[in-house]
Amino acid sequence: MPAFLAAIEVHLKPGALDPQGQAVGKGLRALGHAGVTDVRVGKHLRVRLEAADAAAARAEVERMCRELLANPVMETFSFDVVAAS
Amino acid sequence: MPAFLAAIEVHLKPGALDPQGQAVGKGLRALGHAGVTDVRVGKHLRVRLEAADAAAARAEVERMCRELLANPVMETFSFDVVAAS
Repeated sequence: MPAFLAAIEVHLKPGALDPQGQAVGKGLRALGHAGVTDVRVGKHLRVRLEAADAAAARAEVERMCRELLANPVMETFSFDVVAAS
Repeated sequence: MPAFLAAIEVHLKPGALDPQGQAVGKGLRALGHAGVTDVRVGKHLRVRLEAADAAAARAEVERMCRELLANPVMETFSFDVVAAS
């Protein structure tokens, strides 16, 4: 079966408090990056998978996000799927 | 000053062991995603900053990555900077 590479971003929903992002923002400003006004920290996953075709790969990655990779209550996700080189 | 939005990916270097990625891969296969062959887990940061222009924003984000956001021994980073809407 052909191989595909999915790049997946998972972030807290816009309204959700992000203490990790706040801490990173504070750290950046303390290092002199005074122009930083907001930081959000999320996950970035790279998943390599075999699937019949690109449409099947996309459908499977969407299921992975809903089932395991993102928490639907707190998080949003987006992804791209490309043929693996 | 104009505002910019940086999207930053931080991943472990290709040779570095990624136990979190291995655990996610195992979880996905256990859920029936048998086609998954590799998973790498990294960070995705969204940084909003003010800078004189896009070139200055890019230079500043590069410094942020080198100084704080990525560990140069273990990790690689890449980023995009766009004008904030």
